[in-house]
Amino acid sequence: MLIPALIHRKRQGEPLRPDEWRALIAEFVAGRVPDYQMSALLMAVVFQGMAADELDALTDAMLASGATLTFGPDVPPRVDKHSTGGVGDKVSLVLAPLVACCDLAVPMIAGRGLGHTGGTLDKLESIPGFETALSREDAERQVARIGCVVMGQTPDIAPADRRLYALRDATATVACLPLIAASIMSKKLAEDLQGLVLDIKVGSGAFLPERDDAAALATTMIGLGAARGCPTRALLTAMDRPLGHACGNALEAEEAILALRGEGPRELREITLALGVEMLLAGGRERERSAARARLETALDSGKAAERFGAMVEAQGGNPAVIDDPAVLPQAPMQRVWTAPASGFVQRVDPRPIGMAIVEMGGGRRTMEDDVDPAVGFIVTAKPGDRVERGEPLATVFGRDDEGLALGARALSGAIAIGPETAEATPLVIEVDAQSVRLA
Amino acid sequence: MLIPALIHRKRQGEPLRPDEWRALIAEFVAGRVPDYQMSALLMAVVFQGMAADELDALTDAMLASGATLTFGPDVPPRVDKHSTGGVGDKVSLVLAPLVACCDLAVPMIAGRGLGHTGGTLDKLESIPGFETALSREDAERQVARIGCVVMGQTPDIAPADRRLYALRDATATVACLPLIAASIMSKKLAEDLQGLVLDIKVGSGAFLPERDDAAALATTMIGLGAARGCPTRALLTAMDRPLGHACGNALEAEEAILALRGEGPRELREITLALGVEMLLAGGRERERSAARARLETALDSGKAAERFGAMVEAQGGNPAVIDDPAVLPQAPMQRVWTAPASGFVQRVDPRPIGMAIVEMGGGRRTMEDDVDPAVGFIVTAKPGDRVERGEPLATVFGRDDEGLALGARALSGAIAIGPETAEATPLVIEVDAQSVRLA
Repeated sequence: MLIPALIHRKRQGEPLRPDEWRALIAEFVAGRVPDYQMSALLMAVVFQGMAADELDALTDAMLASGATLTFGPDVPPRVDKHSTGGVGDKVSLVLAPLVACCDLAVPMIAGRGLGHTGGTLDKLESIPGFETALSREDAERQVARIGCVVMGQTPDIAPADRRLYALRDATATVACLPLIAASIMSKKLAEDLQGLVLDIKVGSGAFLPERDDAAALATTMIGLGAARGCPTRALLTAMDRPLGHACGNALEAEEAILALRGEGPRELREITLALGVEMLLAGGRERERSAARARLETALDSGKAAERFGAMVEAQGGNPAVIDDPAVLPQAPMQRVWTAPASGFVQRVDPRPIGMAIVEMGGGRRTMEDDVDPAVGFIVTAKPGDRVERGEPLATVFGRDDEGLALGARALSGAIAIGPETAEATPLVIEVDAQSVRLA
Repeated sequence: MLIPALIHRKRQGEPLRPDEWRALIAEFVAGRVPDYQMSALLMAVVFQGMAADELDALTDAMLASGATLTFGPDVPPRVDKHSTGGVGDKVSLVLAPLVACCDLAVPMIAGRGLGHTGGTLDKLESIPGFETALSREDAERQVARIGCVVMGQTPDIAPADRRLYALRDATATVACLPLIAASIMSKKLAEDLQGLVLDIKVGSGAFLPERDDAAALATTMIGLGAARGCPTRALLTAMDRPLGHACGNALEAEEAILALRGEGPRELREITLALGVEMLLAGGRERERSAARARLETALDSGKAAERFGAMVEAQGGNPAVIDDPAVLPQAPMQRVWTAPASGFVQRVDPRPIGMAIVEMGGGRRTMEDDVDPAVGFIVTAKPGDRVERGEPLATVFGRDDEGLALGARALSGAIAIGPETAEATPLVIEVDAQSVRLA
């Protein structure tokens, strides 16, 4: 296989054959295709895209580069949810145990925060003792026993994706629809799923802010899942404001626990239910959305979902007392309330500066090697469209020191705009059933 | 300097600043920008191009990455010629000593053959003893003494270009107009020139077969040279057939010596004179093309050019007896005459299969590490438009063995087409003064 000739063809817009993609990925993982050739090829893909059979082959090759989870016949059908990431998105913490209460299993391989978006693993690790670096065998056993796990990618799952992602991160080729789709799906398909639900964020705080790009990604991933025996559904949801109120790892874990007890912000409950409904439908547990929703609401309001979360925390080494006592979580030593600088209507609550402020306050990552301070962050109660009075508290900054508080307050002043005109909030769920979306 | 951010901007079509290009190249040469980032950036350049000030900065940075030749006040003005490469192009061997007879100096840094095109250094090295790996100091002394040198790029001249070129070769980013222009000009400007003439080939055997692409490259390089105190001129010339008759290193050296003695194929003499005229004009030695041409013709026909070539051969360790006795050159052990398979008119003599056959017969390179067999090749006397009779000899294959002869004959059968209709040859010099060409 002459690599420069393959790169040249992709550069010229000619699709590579599926067997060429398979060989390329296998040779890359074996260290026989140097990074400098792969990065040039990936940049050519950014410009020329990938045909459907190329994307199929790349996804399969990345999946085949490693091991997969496997479950016995006694384990209920597996379903999972993937979000493209946002600020304040703690839904996975609620959803995994909740859906596990509905006779489905959730073997969730989750990620860490990077840039302005948070990561599910970081949020769970704010619970003292919680361990996300599980072996495949431990994860399989835990799912068989309690129905859910939330863990990191093991070194033996999709190693090709791990290496490719590190290279893409260093060469500005992360933002590329087919590469994103193949990366996500190669990991999700390693979970031995019967159904997958995608939460594709839209808006200023989303990875793909534009609705059309988000819909294209949804369509691509739905196609990849469907062709591999994993019925895939997608919701497009709003990321033009933080999701719920809490932003920051421990603060979000606390808010997730509120939601698991049937409390917490309405928005968090609504999106959790909307995604849970699709998971129950995808997993074949319900046929009607209304029945699925009722079943999920019962699991939340009866305390069963919180109980299942406690079992998962305990199984993964965390302190289950966190369910009843949020003081178990790390607390930021300093707080500062941020009040409305004027009366009027909240025009916008921009997630990106809030997410970036968490990074700058030590609560997020600039590089994958950074440690995070779990306690810092924000509670932002203001939502676009709210009528507010001058001096009314709209948010609280949780910081390590004065500098962090000042930085957080500045970020809020940039993120929250108040004006005299009424403002309308984007609907939380912009589009259900995004599998009907097709590219223009 | 955050490299992924620079790559991202170029990927999005945003020009990088000149200081960013300078820093990037300096850091790359210092080993602080990894190959995988540079290759991704170069692929982004393939798709997004470069603004004029980016190209200026890249060229200057590559030039500044190394040393340059320098000449004292006693040395005549320096001029050089660069060809984009073709089959049978032995013009440099004639032109360097010829122009050195006209009170100009020619410090020519030349290249090796790669792919279907030959290289000046390989042709000269077919002369027993001829040494092209000169130090800068030796080259400067030789030019001061006899007015010309033809040598390889020294390790200390434009090392950034050397490293970038190797990376481009491995990542399918060689064919990119701004990168080609910067690469050529960074080396030529290292020769301390007062004038440069470009021979930009057009036609099926050229690197850029289309006239518009060739003209765009000419325009770009003329701009780069002009802005750096090196008046640059360009001819677009025909590479839809081999140049002259001989194709293959020793055969071409022999034909060049014929031309230096005022003999040899008319086409070779014509293109040498056309390029030489532009060099005399560029170097300020003549103002009128007719006077320049007369001066060059005198140098050829008086034997002075051949004599100067002999001095150069001797200075560079070669056997000067080659001038009078071609038997000094390596001879292929076997020959086969190829005759016209039908009567009619020669429709085409395609250079590319002929050049590729030389590679396959051992006379060219697949990779820069390959050794070449200097003796193998072709004498092709047929030209497009010639009227030929069935059975008339049109070419001779010079091979190492039967296999080589058979391969050569097959290549000729593919390259030479004879048909009943008259055919018109492309003019040898398609466009003089290509500096007036502008991009559409």
